[in-house]
Amino acid sequence: MKAEIITIGDEILIGQIIDTNSAWIATQLNAIGLDVAQISSISDTPAHLTSALNEAKSRADIILITGGIGPTKDDRTKKVLSQYFNSELIIHEDTLKFITHFFTQRGLNVNQLNHDQALVPECCEVLSNEQGTAPGMWFEVDNKIFVSMPGVPYEMKGIMKKHILPRLKNKNGNSVIYHKTVLTQGIPESILAEQLSSWEDALPEHIHLAYLPNPGQIRLRFSAFGNNYDTLKSEVFNEITKLQEIIPEAIFGYDNDTLAGVTGQLLLNKKASMAIAESCTGGYIAHQITSVPGSSEWFKGSVVTYSNQSKISLLQIPAQLIEKHGAVSEQVVLEMAKNVRELFNADYAIATSGIAGPTGESENKPVGTVWIALVSKEKATAQKFNFANNRERNIIRSSQTALNLLRLTLLKE
Amino acid sequence: MKAEIITIGDEILIGQIIDTNSAWIATQLNAIGLDVAQISSISDTPAHLTSALNEAKSRADIILITGGIGPTKDDRTKKVLSQYFNSELIIHEDTLKFITHFFTQRGLNVNQLNHDQALVPECCEVLSNEQGTAPGMWFEVDNKIFVSMPGVPYEMKGIMKKHILPRLKNKNGNSVIYHKTVLTQGIPESILAEQLSSWEDALPEHIHLAYLPNPGQIRLRFSAFGNNYDTLKSEVFNEITKLQEIIPEAIFGYDNDTLAGVTGQLLLNKKASMAIAESCTGGYIAHQITSVPGSSEWFKGSVVTYSNQSKISLLQIPAQLIEKHGAVSEQVVLEMAKNVRELFNADYAIATSGIAGPTGESENKPVGTVWIALVSKEKATAQKFNFANNRERNIIRSSQTALNLLRLTLLKE
Repeated sequence: MKAEIITIGDEILIGQIIDTNSAWIATQLNAIGLDVAQISSISDTPAHLTSALNEAKSRADIILITGGIGPTKDDRTKKVLSQYFNSELIIHEDTLKFITHFFTQRGLNVNQLNHDQALVPECCEVLSNEQGTAPGMWFEVDNKIFVSMPGVPYEMKGIMKKHILPRLKNKNGNSVIYHKTVLTQGIPESILAEQLSSWEDALPEHIHLAYLPNPGQIRLRFSAFGNNYDTLKSEVFNEITKLQEIIPEAIFGYDNDTLAGVTGQLLLNKKASMAIAESCTGGYIAHQITSVPGSSEWFKGSVVTYSNQSKISLLQIPAQLIEKHGAVSEQVVLEMAKNVRELFNADYAIATSGIAGPTGESENKPVGTVWIALVSKEKATAQKFNFANNRERNIIRSSQTALNLLRLTLLKE
Repeated sequence: MKAEIITIGDEILIGQIIDTNSAWIATQLNAIGLDVAQISSISDTPAHLTSALNEAKSRADIILITGGIGPTKDDRTKKVLSQYFNSELIIHEDTLKFITHFFTQRGLNVNQLNHDQALVPECCEVLSNEQGTAPGMWFEVDNKIFVSMPGVPYEMKGIMKKHILPRLKNKNGNSVIYHKTVLTQGIPESILAEQLSSWEDALPEHIHLAYLPNPGQIRLRFSAFGNNYDTLKSEVFNEITKLQEIIPEAIFGYDNDTLAGVTGQLLLNKKASMAIAESCTGGYIAHQITSVPGSSEWFKGSVVTYSNQSKISLLQIPAQLIEKHGAVSEQVVLEMAKNVRELFNADYAIATSGIAGPTGESENKPVGTVWIALVSKEKATAQKFNFANNRERNIIRSSQTALNLLRLTLLKE
């Protein structure tokens, strides 16, 4: 069975946003053994959508449509679909109830535009959207499946996971693609590729490997093709075991794991807690941590001391220490970590101090110079790093490196 | 004149890479007044490319093709193009010379695969590629333009800038498209659409409006079509002036502005500073702020007090106040803001306390309940909000709402 993806809306056509939805959908379809024949981004006009539907139908069995079903006037998809399938728009009562609840819960009235979001072509099956007010719609006509979804990424993903992927998997029979992603931190892509070269060359034909870089992290994605899910899974597992011997410290997790989540689990296992003093990372480590549900069980808190004055007053760093060594120094970052650990009464503390850029560099401290300290009751260490020269990436890489240092320490102790 | 973009190759169809080429090309075409009708990613098979060319030709005047012209066996585009245009593949001497020079300069031999990169359909005009070995090809048939380019981003961009954009600009005459995006915060999409309805209906035919939602923000994008850039710009400016009268508090910026950046500029203008006490936002407000270059000039710092204990010890919140009202309460969030302002010796302070979810709710405080306080030397206010039920979005919306409250206060004072 072949699938096509149609994305409706001008944002992509004028280059304002990059189409990340389609890549996500394609990956998900691949995972259940479905091949994507074409991805099309089209404008929100009735004639264009109609011709795109006809073209897609001529090539594929499953047509997934995103976008064009918001409450505003520039969204015309639903009307076109009702004409295309020759089916009246009717109010879907469950959706209307959900919409009414959605707005009244927030203390808002349901206006006509909200009300009309419950209109759907009579011939479709409604797929509930728990993240928003525009439901998904499933049509089966002439042995072809058409599905319409909102374009907002988290709404689309919710409907795909809950309704569409299970149904399509069911229809697609035996052919399977097994994907597994290994998450690594701290080794640049080209060096990693060199280290993995001979292992990679020896991979079986039906197991593909892709390098997917993020700032400071490289994800290694295995895709295994065959008929038996369990066989593929154990073959990939064997390869990951070999991989762990080659890069034992770099692998921190799999698939949707996060460094903060993995580190938190290690702290939980030890019934230990942590705190942070952030200068150059400016709250990003705390944000990574507090994005993990339940992190309050192991995270005591953070202090973002973005000025020397606040380092002195909040963290009791002696003014002369900053004067002598500068705020971006081993001495200061160690004091920050020690003092924040005591301040929050935590078992572990990390601290960062560096030059995120674009300004602030001095002769011996170029943009990207970052000191990271890690302190526990028994031990205090600090390391210096030189990252890139882009503010955003410096913040991300410093934060990840700091979390990985704590993770490795927790693993060894 | 209308254009279409066709991207050839499996990387995009399996979701391995995101199609950033098309967004870049679309932006460039828009800048010279060319509308993009469709973007299609297709597989590298002769039948698929042929049908995609036919479909594109039926809608557009200019068809830009990327990918499929590398030296390897899975790249079949050139052969298909020669058949499509009924034209023999011949060796292009200048390209062969360039390829030979390219390899011998690097001390490499020119093999058959490299040699064949100089093969082009006889009817095309060759567009030199200074960054690689596959040249661009320009075809003009039946008043339609077809251009084939390599898929490697910097090679494609080189050929676009040097050859294609100047030629297309020349062909397209005076026609221009002007885009401007207005950024709003705090009004849900459906309510905004209702408020703007009659103004939107009265927009001139040649000015289009699109609603682009982000969590907690709606971007309103104007696209104006015409012959004179300055006229379009002033017409859009007039419409924005009307818009400002309808939603004076919601508009915080334009195009690439950020709430943190705009708020920082207001503080700078007043030579004022700020600090934050974050509970439910867990460092995200600080991260938004410290992502702005130069924010150390107006941002003193933040305290992430993720436990009651740290609210008591770091922010001197009386334990009995938390016991009596709960941490998520008007009384506590006001104390947090007052005390953090003094702690950092800042002019303004904001504080957040809420239930980000998925756990932590109580009878009267469902997930999404958030208290935000704003304190200056003269004034202390707190407001309660009810956001969505997703942790990530609760954090984002709470952070943006807090920053917007500060922005509005700074504007009024």
